[in-house]
Amino acid sequence: MSVEALRVAVVGAGYWGPNLVRNFNEAPGADVIAVADLSRERLQPIRKRYPSIRITTDHREIMSDRAIDAVAIATPIKTHRALCEEAFAAGKHVLVEKPLAGTVEDAEAIVRAAERAGRTLMVGHTFVYNPAVTTVRRAIERGDLGKIQYIDSQRVNLGLHQFDFNVLWDLGPHDVSITLYWLDEEPTWVQVTGGCFVQSDIEDVVWMTMGFPSGAIAHAHLSWLAPGKIRTMTVIGSKQMAVYDDVTAVEKVKIFDHGVERLEPDELRRAYRAGDIHSPRVPVTEALQVEARHFIDSIRSGTPPISDGNAGLRVVRVLEAGSSSLRLGGVRVAYDAAPEKVATPAK
Amino acid sequence: MSVEALRVAVVGAGYWGPNLVRNFNEAPGADVIAVADLSRERLQPIRKRYPSIRITTDHREIMSDRAIDAVAIATPIKTHRALCEEAFAAGKHVLVEKPLAGTVEDAEAIVRAAERAGRTLMVGHTFVYNPAVTTVRRAIERGDLGKIQYIDSQRVNLGLHQFDFNVLWDLGPHDVSITLYWLDEEPTWVQVTGGCFVQSDIEDVVWMTMGFPSGAIAHAHLSWLAPGKIRTMTVIGSKQMAVYDDVTAVEKVKIFDHGVERLEPDELRRAYRAGDIHSPRVPVTEALQVEARHFIDSIRSGTPPISDGNAGLRVVRVLEAGSSSLRLGGVRVAYDAAPEKVATPAK
Amino acid sequence: MSVEALRVAVVGAGYWGPNLVRNFNEAPGADVIAVADLSRERLQPIRKRYPSIRITTDHREIMSDRAIDAVAIATPIKTHRALCEEAFAAGKHVLVEKPLAGTVEDAEAIVRAAERAGRTLMVGHTFVYNPAVTTVRRAIERGDLGKIQYIDSQRVNLGLHQFDFNVLWDLGPHDVSITLYWLDEEPTWVQVTGGCFVQSDIEDVVWMTMGFPSGAIAHAHLSWLAPGKIRTMTVIGSKQMAVYDDVTAVEKVKIFDHGVERLEPDELRRAYRAGDIHSPRVPVTEALQVEARHFIDSIRSGTPPISDGNAGLRVVRVLEAGSSSLRLGGVRVAYDAAPEKVATPAK
Amino acid sequence: MSVEALRVAVVGAGYWGPNLVRNFNEAPGADVIAVADLSRERLQPIRKRYPSIRITTDHREIMSDRAIDAVAIATPIKTHRALCEEAFAAGKHVLVEKPLAGTVEDAEAIVRAAERAGRTLMVGHTFVYNPAVTTVRRAIERGDLGKIQYIDSQRVNLGLHQFDFNVLWDLGPHDVSITLYWLDEEPTWVQVTGGCFVQSDIEDVVWMTMGFPSGAIAHAHLSWLAPGKIRTMTVIGSKQMAVYDDVTAVEKVKIFDHGVERLEPDELRRAYRAGDIHSPRVPVTEALQVEARHFIDSIRSGTPPISDGNAGLRVVRVLEAGSSSLRLGGVRVAYDAAPEKVATPAK
Repeated sequence: MSVEALRVAVVGAGYWGPNLVRNFNEAPGADVIAVADLSRERLQPIRKRYPSIRITTDHREIMSDRAIDAVAIATPIKTHRALCEEAFAAGKHVLVEKPLAGTVEDAEAIVRAAERAGRTLMVGHTFVYNPAVTTVRRAIERGDLGKIQYIDSQRVNLGLHQFDFNVLWDLGPHDVSITLYWLDEEPTWVQVTGGCFVQSDIEDVVWMTMGFPSGAIAHAHLSWLAPGKIRTMTVIGSKQMAVYDDVTAVEKVKIFDHGVERLEPDELRRAYRAGDIHSPRVPVTEALQVEARHFIDSIRSGTPPISDGNAGLRVVRVLEAGSSSLRLGGVRVAYDAAPEKVATPAK
Repeated sequence: MSVEALRVAVVGAGYWGPNLVRNFNEAPGADVIAVADLSRERLQPIRKRYPSIRITTDHREIMSDRAIDAVAIATPIKTHRALCEEAFAAGKHVLVEKPLAGTVEDAEAIVRAAERAGRTLMVGHTFVYNPAVTTVRRAIERGDLGKIQYIDSQRVNLGLHQFDFNVLWDLGPHDVSITLYWLDEEPTWVQVTGGCFVQSDIEDVVWMTMGFPSGAIAHAHLSWLAPGKIRTMTVIGSKQMAVYDDVTAVEKVKIFDHGVERLEPDELRRAYRAGDIHSPRVPVTEALQVEARHFIDSIRSGTPPISDGNAGLRVVRVLEAGSSSLRLGGVRVAYDAAPEKVATPAK
Repeated sequence: MSVEALRVAVVGAGYWGPNLVRNFNEAPGADVIAVADLSRERLQPIRKRYPSIRITTDHREIMSDRAIDAVAIATPIKTHRALCEEAFAAGKHVLVEKPLAGTVEDAEAIVRAAERAGRTLMVGHTFVYNPAVTTVRRAIERGDLGKIQYIDSQRVNLGLHQFDFNVLWDLGPHDVSITLYWLDEEPTWVQVTGGCFVQSDIEDVVWMTMGFPSGAIAHAHLSWLAPGKIRTMTVIGSKQMAVYDDVTAVEKVKIFDHGVERLEPDELRRAYRAGDIHSPRVPVTEALQVEARHFIDSIRSGTPPISDGNAGLRVVRVLEAGSSSLRLGGVRVAYDAAPEKVATPAK
Repeated sequence: MSVEALRVAVVGAGYWGPNLVRNFNEAPGADVIAVADLSRERLQPIRKRYPSIRITTDHREIMSDRAIDAVAIATPIKTHRALCEEAFAAGKHVLVEKPLAGTVEDAEAIVRAAERAGRTLMVGHTFVYNPAVTTVRRAIERGDLGKIQYIDSQRVNLGLHQFDFNVLWDLGPHDVSITLYWLDEEPTWVQVTGGCFVQSDIEDVVWMTMGFPSGAIAHAHLSWLAPGKIRTMTVIGSKQMAVYDDVTAVEKVKIFDHGVERLEPDELRRAYRAGDIHSPRVPVTEALQVEARHFIDSIRSGTPPISDGNAGLRVVRVLEAGSSSLRLGGVRVAYDAAPEKVATPAK
């Protein structure tokens, strides 16, 4: 790759696409060349704001343009596989929005296509580029928290209801990608229970639990029905505890020097330690800008991005197992098993 | 029952017993006559503070004292059945701490003993006498919230670990009793998953889900491992939403005039209503004082208390089903079924 | 005035100017025609984002352009008078940033120039167009709060230090304009005390007090030296109390049904009423958009805007009196007096 | 002083007296022997709870009892001088509630009486024994905050209105004693402005400012008219900032590694540093228990307590100067001047 700017095209100008345009436009080392969308109406704001960017309603114009190095795809999930395969066939690097695909089968096909093409595949799990998420990861890596025992997450707000997939597939990718990034391991089993209250067939609230080989458990409450926006993940370690609150403007990460020291039956109350609370400064960088730059760097260096195809595939595997569990009334479903293979009850 | 003061004895002077002594002492219409505990040491503070109250290490002195009308029992769970049966056999009214018993079998035996004796049996589910809990119940009864869709609860803090039962049996009675009181129905199934991190066989964190005939779902995160004390229950109704926060000093109950109004595919974003937020004044009365007075009133009037034996039995049924679910890896266990009878997966 | 769009030019493209460009661009009924700034560098982002807007480094091009109906001025305070006079002489309507001027003399000259020209003069006291501020004003107008007793304001954050004026002139215009809008009266006296900690001659913290004919008192803590951003105004009325918090995302306005009911010496503790707390929904409209539309409407209808020249002049009068008080060690300075005329001590 | 327990009597059994009885009762090294109050009714709860403590309606019984070593006085302010003088004349050590007296003259007389008697005089400025206040003091002593620039305090709540003195004398002693303890210097001037809203002659809200030789300024908003209870003191230092919040259950003290680093005109925005936030663990000890023990230790060791007579006198001096300022409309009154001597305006 030369030192010239990476020429990027964006496919999909709905809710997220314009954010990709803006961030690649601002990122050093990249130029946004073209934007495609089926809807002329959605392209209008792009044209107005960035008169120099070419727009088109036919994404094939982008795929066939040899001047374009990379494609960022922000289209409905069910189109991801075809668009990714097309882009890789044309020799382009791909950033595709999360989740990578709606099925493990499609996700695997995309990963294989990237491997065959020898091109970079990155999945837009923006949160793993969020400075607060990184701050917690560093604390875990350094061993500050000790052995991770459990993670509890609240990710709820009022709306926005989707029509073609449920809240597990809408909000779940965030929790799963962050949790796998923090724990650095894949779950053993997934368990999801929930309810459909506004639409008859689409869950608007689910509770998801994942069990890990290390013994760690991760639980998440995901909901489109809540009185306020909550984005809180609590990490309980054997040494310290951390809370990551994505909604607050300050103190997004707090490390609690709290724990259970020892457990002698006759001195029960002394066993708890509630020490200092520390809130490390978290840079205010926009996560999507970090992500855009990481995509550019990964292409230039040829090293896989943090949220590469396999990371994206793991998330889809969890969601697919979770969907099976949901359908089966919340039984534990083995992480890598087909839906019909229900995991043996623990103990 | 004459207009004379009710003569109350308290059995058990550990953590909770002294609170019962203080509250019955302050309640009009009752006198605390005696306190029993196996440990002289635990009786010392009682003697010092209330020199006029008789103390004894033999609870049978209390049971056989015909001058005593009612007994409040705050002893370890496994002793509840024997003590209650003894008290009813002696013709006394009984207030017993929650949970009523450690098994459905014992709980049923206690309820039957009360019925045979024709005496009042009340279980110390203090939270159903908490003015904030009552405020939410009134809002539900009036239909302010519409149809209840789901309840999500966080009941976590650092410790206090127990040695003879897990966090489900320690904190669960609160959530179950409040939820059943609010919804006024019994669950269809119970599902519990969790982990043992500090002690090898005792869960210090569980997530419990209950499904109800009305379609409502209640979920609770119960934990002894958390960086801070959280006591928050969120009630999502089809019309409005409510949050009950037991930790905050003010605004313990908030009613959110929020909801999803209509769902036309082409006007998705307009479907959400975020209106006023109202925080009704909640009386600052101590819940245990309300409970003590309700016990006295129930005895005098001969009407069953809100948390009568059957209410207490229902809580034990849920906990027992929850224990089975926990053992089986979190499958749904039918509420009234024996542990081995696993509920049919939903849908 | 025809039904054609109002043709607006913006003078000053520093921190605030681009916000004016964006908001007039989005407001129905107005077109931004031109932007002037002495610095080509500051004009670049405007050119890039709005290629159709004419840019110039000579504001006289704007003043002499007969096609331009109105000018929005966002330049340093000391240039306000000359620019406003020039604009009015050219027959243009003017929106000028707050404070209207750095002295009462200049402010009066601007008001007179507007009157002579028969054109609309509006001062950019954006907060009086803030929906939360309007919500409190409505509550006061309806008498919900009763007689206003006092207002206490915290308006602090870390930086941004100015070099040519102090925190009183930087943050004070907000508090003064909001307070005068709410109370609908002019103060009798002003009292300011403060300190210079970072720069030797420029106060970075002041405490300002205003006394009003109605008996109301308004106090504000204004600071560039604080650990966090606080924007809270508390209004104490004889019937109810209100808190307006501009930093929070939800519940920006809370009305407390609290008060002191009666004061009989022998029943002191019963005299306090702490009732419901109500948080009315506040529209999320951007205040500057409301302001831009109000400017357009005022011009079209010929009626004076809420923050007209006289409103702006009153704010400058308060600030000038406050500066005198600051210089004199915090004595009460009569609101309409010349700086040397110190107010007689109260009582 | 022998190793025998100190025999303490409490004079005054109103609001605060019972707290003194309880704490001296619990403190090792002291026994509460007797309690006096003019009202038999107020003595009843003492008798009921502590049957072994002698009660009397004649405080002279206490003063003349040679078996009593120390007297804790919790009576109305205007009685402090006579009671203290009587106690010292009888050779007793004295803990007297704050403020030490209602006038500087009385306060000086008490200090002199203690000196003449060679007995310990301690004033009940409980907050200087509050572990959170001590934590901030330690941070200041270590130089963590750098040079203290200003302190801003909010000490407001709804009620409890007093009838014989205003909010300055009611809540002011807390702020003044804490501030003088933290800054370890006496103010140069005091400035107070305020209003009387509920009672015609008694201020229910005041704003007090103190200037110090070091250049530090301390400001406090004291009020009985507020929608909620706020107890927040913010300390701005040249290096770091601290917030002490007495209302919150956790994180009572936060240290902000925030500041203004340098101020070069062309790099203004880089001058602010917002670093980590640290919340040191604050012991949960009750301040009054610390105070009681410190009184006992001071008597035994013969060293003056932290809040000795002179500390109490300084507080009264500030309050008396503040009262003069309030009467004079808020001018700066020199700290050690007689009320009629108004300080020269600054600069």
